[in-house]
Amino acid sequence: MARAPVLTPQSTDFPQWYQDVVAKAELADNGPVRGTMVIRPYGYAIWERLQAELDRRIKDCGAANAYFPLFIPEAYLRKEAEHVEGFSPELAVVTHGGGKELEEPVVVRPTSETIINSYFAKWVQSHRDLPLLVNQWANVVRWELRPRLFLRTTEFLWQEGHTAHVTEEDAARYAVRILHEVYEDVMVNVLAVPVRLGRKTERERFAGATTSWTCEGTMGDGKALQMATSHELGQNFARAFGTQYQADDGTLVHVWQTSWGASTRLLGALIMAHGDDAGLRLPPAIAPVQVAVLLVRDEGGAGERASSIAADLRAGGHRVQLDDRVSTSFGRRAVEWELKGAPVRVEVGPRDLADGLVTLVTRHDGAKSPVPVAEVGGRVAAALAAAQAALLAQATELRDARTTDVQTVDEAAEAARSGFARLPWGAVGPGGEARLAEAGASVRCLQRPDGSLAPPGDDDGLVAYVARAY
Amino acid sequence: MARAPVLTPQSTDFPQWYQDVVAKAELADNGPVRGTMVIRPYGYAIWERLQAELDRRIKDCGAANAYFPLFIPEAYLRKEAEHVEGFSPELAVVTHGGGKELEEPVVVRPTSETIINSYFAKWVQSHRDLPLLVNQWANVVRWELRPRLFLRTTEFLWQEGHTAHVTEEDAARYAVRILHEVYEDVMVNVLAVPVRLGRKTERERFAGATTSWTCEGTMGDGKALQMATSHELGQNFARAFGTQYQADDGTLVHVWQTSWGASTRLLGALIMAHGDDAGLRLPPAIAPVQVAVLLVRDEGGAGERASSIAADLRAGGHRVQLDDRVSTSFGRRAVEWELKGAPVRVEVGPRDLADGLVTLVTRHDGAKSPVPVAEVGGRVAAALAAAQAALLAQATELRDARTTDVQTVDEAAEAARSGFARLPWGAVGPGGEARLAEAGASVRCLQRPDGSLAPPGDDDGLVAYVARAY
Repeated sequence: MARAPVLTPQSTDFPQWYQDVVAKAELADNGPVRGTMVIRPYGYAIWERLQAELDRRIKDCGAANAYFPLFIPEAYLRKEAEHVEGFSPELAVVTHGGGKELEEPVVVRPTSETIINSYFAKWVQSHRDLPLLVNQWANVVRWELRPRLFLRTTEFLWQEGHTAHVTEEDAARYAVRILHEVYEDVMVNVLAVPVRLGRKTERERFAGATTSWTCEGTMGDGKALQMATSHELGQNFARAFGTQYQADDGTLVHVWQTSWGASTRLLGALIMAHGDDAGLRLPPAIAPVQVAVLLVRDEGGAGERASSIAADLRAGGHRVQLDDRVSTSFGRRAVEWELKGAPVRVEVGPRDLADGLVTLVTRHDGAKSPVPVAEVGGRVAAALAAAQAALLAQATELRDARTTDVQTVDEAAEAARSGFARLPWGAVGPGGEARLAEAGASVRCLQRPDGSLAPPGDDDGLVAYVARAY
Repeated sequence: MARAPVLTPQSTDFPQWYQDVVAKAELADNGPVRGTMVIRPYGYAIWERLQAELDRRIKDCGAANAYFPLFIPEAYLRKEAEHVEGFSPELAVVTHGGGKELEEPVVVRPTSETIINSYFAKWVQSHRDLPLLVNQWANVVRWELRPRLFLRTTEFLWQEGHTAHVTEEDAARYAVRILHEVYEDVMVNVLAVPVRLGRKTERERFAGATTSWTCEGTMGDGKALQMATSHELGQNFARAFGTQYQADDGTLVHVWQTSWGASTRLLGALIMAHGDDAGLRLPPAIAPVQVAVLLVRDEGGAGERASSIAADLRAGGHRVQLDDRVSTSFGRRAVEWELKGAPVRVEVGPRDLADGLVTLVTRHDGAKSPVPVAEVGGRVAAALAAAQAALLAQATELRDARTTDVQTVDEAAEAARSGFARLPWGAVGPGGEARLAEAGASVRCLQRPDGSLAPPGDDDGLVAYVARAY
């Protein structure tokens, strides 16, 4: 099979490799307005599957979907001081509507804490209305000066959960539940990306939160990607918007809140955690096409056989695409399916068929093997399960290989040039964070030495993970 | 059971009844920016089901989902003359982004023909790239001066399909296929709303289309609601954006296109086509809660029995909610489920249970019957099937009863005060349309006398449906 060098090799230029994959696998394209993005059908098919996986788990955690407006009065953002300070530089502002200048300009939502709290304040009356657990799937806009497809775009798609609780403890528990049962579960078991869970430092915390929890992934170049965050908001927004419930003794009490989100940047994580010089390598759990059945040449009944194999695999519950575009060269089509990261290819040609065989190719390791036609179903199922496990194992290996234990901020800055540094948080501190920032790195999260989560205030003996981040 | 008059009766004030239902069934709320809308969890749950029903059929028609940017350069809209003229008065314009005034203002998409064509022009090279069949689920903004929740909102949610074809015939066939296989099928078989399919007159056509097909529903007050449209765009946008393919003889040919959409206004149709003075009446196929199991009082093992009945019904494949909020009066909860239109209620109380019975209540006709506990599963399934059929039959009866055959424009204007008028298109014509507009009515669609679709140009002997419209 002829192999043209379709992508810039990762070792030559990782960012250029990323751009090449996004373009050649037909995942996305730059929009005409700076920083915006067109998600092409193949990229969107991955996003749809990811949405379904997240959505199911969000509902299992008791949250219901709703929809709040795109346009927010500017005054709403100003009600929470840290929040407006954090988001002001990134806002898009609508000044004209319906052919007239607006009396009050409106902003395009960068996130929805403010507008959602203005409704929670109406909807919450008594403790019987709590917990109030809401999620929305929406587009948001944050003006981006250095855009990169999926990773940093002026407009992106995401889900944002917003909840209100009677007690601080209940809110804290829910924020952590979402972190584990929605995000960690999807990252690890669907995307096959091992994540480090932990608390953000005060410097890195969401604007308006009291605590931010994060899932940090390790990309193929050793850099960090923040894959999802879950925040405790304390009573900050509740006070700003008057979101209160009447307690049993008749007094009004501000609710305790959380918010949490994951976005289309997860597609960037998927590309960079698993991709290789031939393109994407998609975990079967998320791949829109798990099995590509390639007809080599339509001779000797190969065409009918390919289509019946595809139908059988589909009936077996797999997502299958039959590629019978024989007017395009077989090599070119094989390269295309490698680019697109289909986990398994079944190549059906007249020569193999004469011996009762087809060729099974697994994308994650490039292995090819002849398989008797009668065994295709079982072999494909086994190959898909193996591919899912192998990608997670490889990504875990990469993560560990790219992590260095150090003792000082200077060593951490040095180690962050090629991966993660792990060091005592006591050796960094807020002063150390400023020095790391100068070196282009940051504290990605804080953990206990055993990897467990440490609640805010409990900073003794914590470990800090330091890396450069997307 | 005590019944407070929770809603303004339809006969007193239909528009006020509509507002009451939207508020009291907790479907939606007005947003802070004029014309915007908050879709509350119960309303959004209906929309999610509707999305799934439309999405599955769209995919069956071969279209793949994608996502194009919210922000469109103003210049794009100006490329198609009719299109910009139609949409200019409704645009929201972003003039500032990232803290700076933009060099070129951008508009928030009112629809995406222009930006999508700018990509189709890049993606389409040869006839092998055609047909190109794309759909997107998105929010759009059209500045609305007289907003009404779901029916006319400044921001709404919808799907918009956009396709490109080699021939005019193929585009025409596809537009009509979508009309039947996606829209008509969902309206009739899911929403239980009979629709009149037909062609829009030139006056009512989509800005930039050569032909617009529509599904027109009849609401409870006899008014029309345009429930979905499917347009042939000819080569208008292809010419404006240079969307061309290379034919076999090497010449460049502009593609032929369609676009088609349905939106959150369908929730308005659902409310107004079936609702009564007690609230919503949801067809089981779309109801988020098909069966509400109400615990009357938690005595004599009724609590456990209610929860096991709910579990059994859920296992039987129904969408079930157990309402065991016994601290709220039973009457109030029964009213709430009527408001929310749950098709079937199963009331479980200790007195009935002592006789081995529960009470089954069907929302569409208010019928109550005692049912032996062992028969609940079968009776509920039958009641749901009957409710779906009865709502369609009633809506069809309403549509027919509200339709009057007339011969002149004046008679049509008169008949449109309370319903639809049907008359020969030859008796109306473009001149008649202007007179109908003065009377607040319009030609909703043109059909052949047998109800079938008449292609553009074939205007002889057509029938016009005239009505006031939402």
